[in-house]
Amino acid sequence: MSSHTETICSVSTAPGTGAIAVLRVSGLQAFAIVEQLFRKRTVFMDTPSHVAKLGEVFDGESLIDQVVFVKFAAPHSYDGEDMVELSCHGSRFIQQKILELLLQRGCRMAEPGEFTLRAFLNGKMDLPQAEAVGDLIDSQSESAHRLAVNQLKGGFSRKIADLRDRFIQLAALLELELDFSEEEVEFADRKQFLDLLAELRAETDTLVRSFRTGNALKNGVPVAIVGKPNVGKSTLLNALLNDDRAIVSDIPGTTRDTVEDTLTLGGTLFRFIDTAGIRHSDDTIENSGIQRSYRAMENADIILYMADAATDTLDSLSEELREIRDRINTSDKKIILILNKIDKASVSSVPSETLSCEVVGISAKERKNLEAVTEALTRHVAEHAVSDGTLLTNARHYDLMVKIADDIERIEEGLTGGVPTDLVAIDVRSALDKLGRLTGTITDNDVLNTIFGKFCIGK
Amino acid sequence: MSSHTETICSVSTAPGTGAIAVLRVSGLQAFAIVEQLFRKRTVFMDTPSHVAKLGEVFDGESLIDQVVFVKFAAPHSYDGEDMVELSCHGSRFIQQKILELLLQRGCRMAEPGEFTLRAFLNGKMDLPQAEAVGDLIDSQSESAHRLAVNQLKGGFSRKIADLRDRFIQLAALLELELDFSEEEVEFADRKQFLDLLAELRAETDTLVRSFRTGNALKNGVPVAIVGKPNVGKSTLLNALLNDDRAIVSDIPGTTRDTVEDTLTLGGTLFRFIDTAGIRHSDDTIENSGIQRSYRAMENADIILYMADAATDTLDSLSEELREIRDRINTSDKKIILILNKIDKASVSSVPSETLSCEVVGISAKERKNLEAVTEALTRHVAEHAVSDGTLLTNARHYDLMVKIADDIERIEEGLTGGVPTDLVAIDVRSALDKLGRLTGTITDNDVLNTIFGKFCIGK
Repeated sequence: MSSHTETICSVSTAPGTGAIAVLRVSGLQAFAIVEQLFRKRTVFMDTPSHVAKLGEVFDGESLIDQVVFVKFAAPHSYDGEDMVELSCHGSRFIQQKILELLLQRGCRMAEPGEFTLRAFLNGKMDLPQAEAVGDLIDSQSESAHRLAVNQLKGGFSRKIADLRDRFIQLAALLELELDFSEEEVEFADRKQFLDLLAELRAETDTLVRSFRTGNALKNGVPVAIVGKPNVGKSTLLNALLNDDRAIVSDIPGTTRDTVEDTLTLGGTLFRFIDTAGIRHSDDTIENSGIQRSYRAMENADIILYMADAATDTLDSLSEELREIRDRINTSDKKIILILNKIDKASVSSVPSETLSCEVVGISAKERKNLEAVTEALTRHVAEHAVSDGTLLTNARHYDLMVKIADDIERIEEGLTGGVPTDLVAIDVRSALDKLGRLTGTITDNDVLNTIFGKFCIGK
Repeated sequence: MSSHTETICSVSTAPGTGAIAVLRVSGLQAFAIVEQLFRKRTVFMDTPSHVAKLGEVFDGESLIDQVVFVKFAAPHSYDGEDMVELSCHGSRFIQQKILELLLQRGCRMAEPGEFTLRAFLNGKMDLPQAEAVGDLIDSQSESAHRLAVNQLKGGFSRKIADLRDRFIQLAALLELELDFSEEEVEFADRKQFLDLLAELRAETDTLVRSFRTGNALKNGVPVAIVGKPNVGKSTLLNALLNDDRAIVSDIPGTTRDTVEDTLTLGGTLFRFIDTAGIRHSDDTIENSGIQRSYRAMENADIILYMADAATDTLDSLSEELREIRDRINTSDKKIILILNKIDKASVSSVPSETLSCEVVGISAKERKNLEAVTEALTRHVAEHAVSDGTLLTNARHYDLMVKIADDIERIEEGLTGGVPTDLVAIDVRSALDKLGRLTGTITDNDVLNTIFGKFCIGK
């Protein structure tokens, strides 16, 4: 990323034709460059900061558009630089033309996320808040949106600041011990130190564990739909999605590729993975589909196991579920047995205790009792909600937090194993360094490039 | 269209996800409704008109987004009503959520073009200017953009106002004659009247004729690519378009459907219509393709007639061009003979006088001399440019102008044929009525619905 004294520009509204489009210009020369677009330069020059005014953008003698402009004088702007927002008629031609004029007069195109990068570099927000801007724009559901807003408002940053304060306390206690170490005094209050460390370990572990939920809420809760061939998996998915996403036929083994689609239920995004039926097959392609079914289940938070209410027996179902539980770790997953085709079955209920999972009877084809499925899905999410709302949603945060948890473990081991205090202090400083990287007080360009490179241009 | 006292809202930026999105609210309750979105209502209430300010939009206790809002107090707004523009983070979820909040608090969704309709109804612009807003947003080329800007700035309206002034003069002269008619005096100055009428006829005819060019510049200049099968028409189109839009093969008769694609050359949009080869065929499908070739030529401004430099003779080409000139009226078209495959030919030039059309030798496959083709195309447009820049570009304007030309003819016939002055006056009033409909001083709802129904929502 290059210096933020350069003046950058971009279209910041969604690509394409709209009633209006907004272009952003930011940097030292922002006012001087945009001023040149207006034939009546004084109209632009004399307008105070934060005032919306109509102006006419010219290319030489040709009127390009009537625009509404707002100047935002530094530091009172989104990114802390001098900024201008130009609101023009939203034709592609006009957007392109005004961009060209800006580039000709000395702007360069903004890189993805560069306005937000500048906001971070200018201290307008810390790194998790800047990351939240990207998440906010990408959020497709209420849950994802809520997480991003909380992070943008600094909820997550406060949590990290709180952890950091306590690590500083730890460090202070260690310094104290080091100060007296030459006099070979015992550690003033090692119990206080260990209590603090236990607290930190508990909170760090909670955060690490929250990533599964946080990530699911942000990117969609993965739901695998599995079961024997022709049991109605694709029909259920279609019924839930209310369209014809998957190919449905009566020929067992129709669905070979895992089909992925998303659906928002109760404000949460679910990612459904329709899989090939699980059965032994001589068809290599289909067998590889079955491999994918197991992989889908491993990656899922929820497994919808479908069975045929008319033909499957309690014994066979017990056996099938046992096979799944043997092959993959289901301890952190919810399994819901979906008894399909209840309209054709004599018995419509199976005692859920027997199979140790929830059982829902439906008819996917007749769209009967589908609401029980959606209710079971949303209930699972509600049960996993974390009370204080701070969830790890970001792989970068997760990776750092896992490493902080490792540091804590090493600190504990060191203290109980009699490792010299100055070596333990290194691990405490290492954890503090990671917390600094989390909030962005310590950064390197690679990390910034990775973070902001994922943003859209114009943000 | 319903009353413009209602408060309407819409997303006004292009649909989809962007860095930012802008919502517009307009109407009597605009300020009162938007105020309710902010938890700190005074932040909104106390902000003066035309000042951009940061605020937080809440749904109950949930923060939805940090937005920048600008109030535009009537009549100093785009549409002359109280308006608010909310600039939010551009996720679909946030756009949708804020729209929902506005609807819940008493807004209704804006109909297509309704903001501009209000601008028209509030006298902010006349009808051609309002129509120009739609054209401006749709404009894909510099030519189309220039026409729309000229119309938006009132260039076209001034022309119409000038015509109207002179019709009023006509009417006044007639009134004068009517006042004295009982005394059976001869018309005071019938020569003056006829001179004025002749001027009006000339200008009206020029405008009517300008529609062909105006429409072509706005929607694209239609270019038909024709010639015998396998002569390289699709290859030329692909070479010009630089992609694989048409299917190219060595089998004569591959292109059966007319393929339409557009390309901007020298700031003007060209619509290319690739047609089936012209030859006699027993294949019914292909014969109907040949029918379409002739239709394409009839609708085209420019015909690129392709021939094979290696195999076609001067005699056969003369014959083929004569057949086209026999079957369709080519007086208002430019025909360019494209001699393809010059790399394989011994002779590379044909005297253009012999065939009474421009001749360009190329190799479509080798991309040789293609710039001569584009140069010939843009030259045609330059030759047809109208000096004072007022062109009819709009079918509604064209229809009315054709009818005004009819009125003028009837007025002339009436005067020279001794029709009573009061009957002639009816035709003058009829022409004035049509000019009123053109500028929108006379309107009906059907016309407004048709005009604004074509706009995008949010404009």
